[in-house]
Amino acid sequence: MTYCVGLQIDRGLVFMSDTRTNAGVDNISTFGKMTVWETPGERVLVLLSAGNLATTQAVVSLIEERSKAPAERAPSILDTPSMFQTARLVGDVIKEVIGHSTPVGQTADAFGASFILGGQIRGTEPRLFLIYPEGNFIESGPDTPFLQIGETKYGKPILVRAYDPALSFAETVKLLMVSFDSTLKSNLSVGLPLDLLFYERDSFRVGFRKRFAADDGYYRQISEGWSRALKAAFASLPDVPG
Amino acid sequence: MTYCVGLQIDRGLVFMSDTRTNAGVDNISTFGKMTVWETPGERVLVLLSAGNLATTQAVVSLIEERSKAPAERAPSILDTPSMFQTARLVGDVIKEVIGHSTPVGQTADAFGASFILGGQIRGTEPRLFLIYPEGNFIESGPDTPFLQIGETKYGKPILVRAYDPALSFAETVKLLMVSFDSTLKSNLSVGLPLDLLFYERDSFRVGFRKRFAADDGYYRQISEGWSRALKAAFASLPDVPG
Repeated sequence: MTYCVGLQIDRGLVFMSDTRTNAGVDNISTFGKMTVWETPGERVLVLLSAGNLATTQAVVSLIEERSKAPAERAPSILDTPSMFQTARLVGDVIKEVIGHSTPVGQTADAFGASFILGGQIRGTEPRLFLIYPEGNFIESGPDTPFLQIGETKYGKPILVRAYDPALSFAETVKLLMVSFDSTLKSNLSVGLPLDLLFYERDSFRVGFRKRFAADDGYYRQISEGWSRALKAAFASLPDVPG
Repeated sequence: MTYCVGLQIDRGLVFMSDTRTNAGVDNISTFGKMTVWETPGERVLVLLSAGNLATTQAVVSLIEERSKAPAERAPSILDTPSMFQTARLVGDVIKEVIGHSTPVGQTADAFGASFILGGQIRGTEPRLFLIYPEGNFIESGPDTPFLQIGETKYGKPILVRAYDPALSFAETVKLLMVSFDSTLKSNLSVGLPLDLLFYERDSFRVGFRKRFAADDGYYRQISEGWSRALKAAFASLPDVPG
């Protein structure tokens, strides 16, 4: 499986993704699921992917090829005038790839893939989308400020509880680390290393990007510190009366 | 859906279940999912159910009828010599009910149901089982001291982190409350009121049983207190370096 989160805060956008892919528990590999396109000073686009690896790689490759040789085939992801148009472009590529993979008479489910697309293009606001295998998409907003794909359930409660639009980047990373650690502890098909990126509103360049390896000291600090902090939090709750 | 947990601690067994059943989000009702058989001084048996309501009710009714008129049809759930035999009896009833409901040529999935069975019979240890729709079952142990059925994912991370066999009953209730609250916040098809029961090892009678209604003060204290405690826990974690 996979776990990816895109999260919108007042200061910008934060993305985190795991790197495990599997075809059965006896066949696992490491593949990055975060792709970044950057034209410094003009646009930053981040794409996270979950689902069939052949589909997600084909989608990214097709977008990549078109962005590198824009003369060849329009439109390029580096030329779209808005984030909405960018999401449509990605959605169209997904439909094209899945349609191409699906043999006659077979459903598209096996080739399915979902994407989170976020970023900012000069002259527009930062935006964050979840794009479905059907190519349509939804956008995050104040009511739903984070979007998840893949194994979303284990890591959701902590996001629901602790998200605040005023979070700093460092606090948001903590929040995502805890959400990922909860997922990693429960689902073998989500695995380290983790990729992190944050984008600061109106900066039009990648703010910070880091890969947390399995032996990363900070990840271990968070994982162990969170267990301790949770036990203290429990102790602070009242006992059941009666 | 449904969320039920059975949990084994040094002091005994603790059970919690929600009460929501639904056939689509536009058709929800309240049904208890916890059934208790007690012969004070001799045995306590607790059964939690998840899945097709017609199946789970038929299973419970069939067990009930046999326990009330033991002369009519053996074996009765009040006569089994061990928890293992009791789990087999329940498993056999499940198979019988699902087999009876399933029309020719249709799979049994639609009629599926899972059960948690726990308790103690004089002369034996307290035991806890998860019984599958196929009628077979697994037992909890030191490595997996809690069993969940229904919507298990949202509430699992907190159980994994904070479970300790030395927990008191009051602490276990807190733990389950948080696990249920995390699930309630994320899945509409799990709903209040919540049923709680704990059984103290070698007591051979129900120790404490309570229904927490939607407006229950303790539930609200836990839900709000936990949000506050989590924020404090976050604040105690270190910031990402760099």
